[in-house]
Amino acid sequence: MHAPWPTVTIVGVGMIGGSVGRALRTRKLATRIIGVGRTAAGLDAARKAGAITETAADVAAAVAAADLVVVAAGVAAIPEILDAVDAAARPGTLVTDAGSTKATIVAGWERRRRSRRCRFVGAHPLAGSHRRGAAAAEADLFSGRVAVVTPGPRTPAADTDAVGQFWSALGATVFVMPPREHDRLLAATSHAPHLVAAALAAATPPEALRFTAGGWRDTTRIAAGDPELWADILLDNAGGLAPAMKRFAGAVEKLLAAVAAGDRRRLVALLAKAKEGRDALGS
Amino acid sequence: MHAPWPTVTIVGVGMIGGSVGRALRTRKLATRIIGVGRTAAGLDAARKAGAITETAADVAAAVAAADLVVVAAGVAAIPEILDAVDAAARPGTLVTDAGSTKATIVAGWERRRRSRRCRFVGAHPLAGSHRRGAAAAEADLFSGRVAVVTPGPRTPAADTDAVGQFWSALGATVFVMPPREHDRLLAATSHAPHLVAAALAAATPPEALRFTAGGWRDTTRIAAGDPELWADILLDNAGGLAPAMKRFAGAVEKLLAAVAAGDRRRLVALLAKAKEGRDALGS
Repeated sequence: MHAPWPTVTIVGVGMIGGSVGRALRTRKLATRIIGVGRTAAGLDAARKAGAITETAADVAAAVAAADLVVVAAGVAAIPEILDAVDAAARPGTLVTDAGSTKATIVAGWERRRRSRRCRFVGAHPLAGSHRRGAAAAEADLFSGRVAVVTPGPRTPAADTDAVGQFWSALGATVFVMPPREHDRLLAATSHAPHLVAAALAAATPPEALRFTAGGWRDTTRIAAGDPELWADILLDNAGGLAPAMKRFAGAVEKLLAAVAAGDRRRLVALLAKAKEGRDALGS
Repeated sequence: MHAPWPTVTIVGVGMIGGSVGRALRTRKLATRIIGVGRTAAGLDAARKAGAITETAADVAAAVAAADLVVVAAGVAAIPEILDAVDAAARPGTLVTDAGSTKATIVAGWERRRRSRRCRFVGAHPLAGSHRRGAAAAEADLFSGRVAVVTPGPRTPAADTDAVGQFWSALGATVFVMPPREHDRLLAATSHAPHLVAAALAAATPPEALRFTAGGWRDTTRIAAGDPELWADILLDNAGGLAPAMKRFAGAVEKLLAAVAAGDRRRLVALLAKAKEGRDALGS
């Protein structure tokens, strides 16, 4: 049996792209894995991590022979990369991405759908980390994680299925939903928490840092993420972020009102409700 | 050489009290460790965890022979327990606690200082966890952690030193500061983060929980803490919490304004500033 996607090109071989490569190799899903990225050092790290079998000089050269292309770059760079991939890949090549927001990326593709040569379906594997680079890549990063696949209104069902099969083959549980719905949900579960973690870290007086423990460290961990990547995510999903932050502000308001009123029964009830949602997820 | 505190009584043998007991035994700092708590099951768990050598029926019986008493109960219960300890222990017995807030507890002791028989100095080892019970106790819980010792204005320096030596002997790095300063700092590093984590968990729509990843799990972890214990902490330090939450709200406002204005440069700068504070702590 030959590999389902003999030649895969990964554009952007950081932690996510590198993990895609390592998973493909470990699971024998591809024979050639061509990496292309912004820096020679990054490509070198990806090769050393066993994430790619070869490199290419640019996107055009990298995708010419590809059966499947995975774009694992920052969200702001993805639309332009998709255009370059579409211009150089063989007609009918399957293309997916791993961007943390989906509405803008999918809309950008759809706007020129009639002239597109490739079959793109956007995706988001929920397996991010504050760690970066191919050295942090893991072959089982997607195992047991969720990957959201976000077809546009005119995406052929066969393309959605094919991209779903790809992420599923890497070990992920695949959910299919419209890009806007993805962005709405991820605003609550990822983008608002990131903004909140950054605000907590920023609001902690320097003299207090010595007196932090596990709670502060957990709560602010994602504030160590890359500022440029996260600025692009927050800006791109400003529309989803606003209502999520409004819900959050409402929850803060309720808790603070109970504290200000000295209403212990109400405060315990609010904290118990929050705990209930949290406990559903495990530690 | 005999143990520095031959008989230690621990009132409240949960995760913190149990860890005190295990640390005392492992480090051979005490020979008898008497546990007293609310439930037989809790005392049983403490004995099984190797946290205590014997139990007593009530506080009075437990402290009668003690050289040192550690009160490791919820903050709302501590003032009353201290009164009971003071009434039953031998005059001059050293007493400390492990409560997460300090101003109310120390003020309660100080109000009746002239009639006190024991030598109490409040403390807070920064080693909490969302885990509970003596089964979660660890002998090295305090190793390399910070313990804040909070004398009142009339606490003799010798008593502060003695209590500092105790927490230091358990492996902690001891800082001495007034109770109010402790509460101000911990509002920023512990109490505000707890309220924020609870608000995030509460504001996440149930249908979004399937689409959480490491970021959400980290950010909301402490929301799994005990609602009753945390309600008492937040209520007790309402005065410190308010300004900390105001600083936090200001930081959120700045970030959201940059997002709303589409000001990428400003947003990157704010996120980078937050990351700087976070990176100082390590993962």
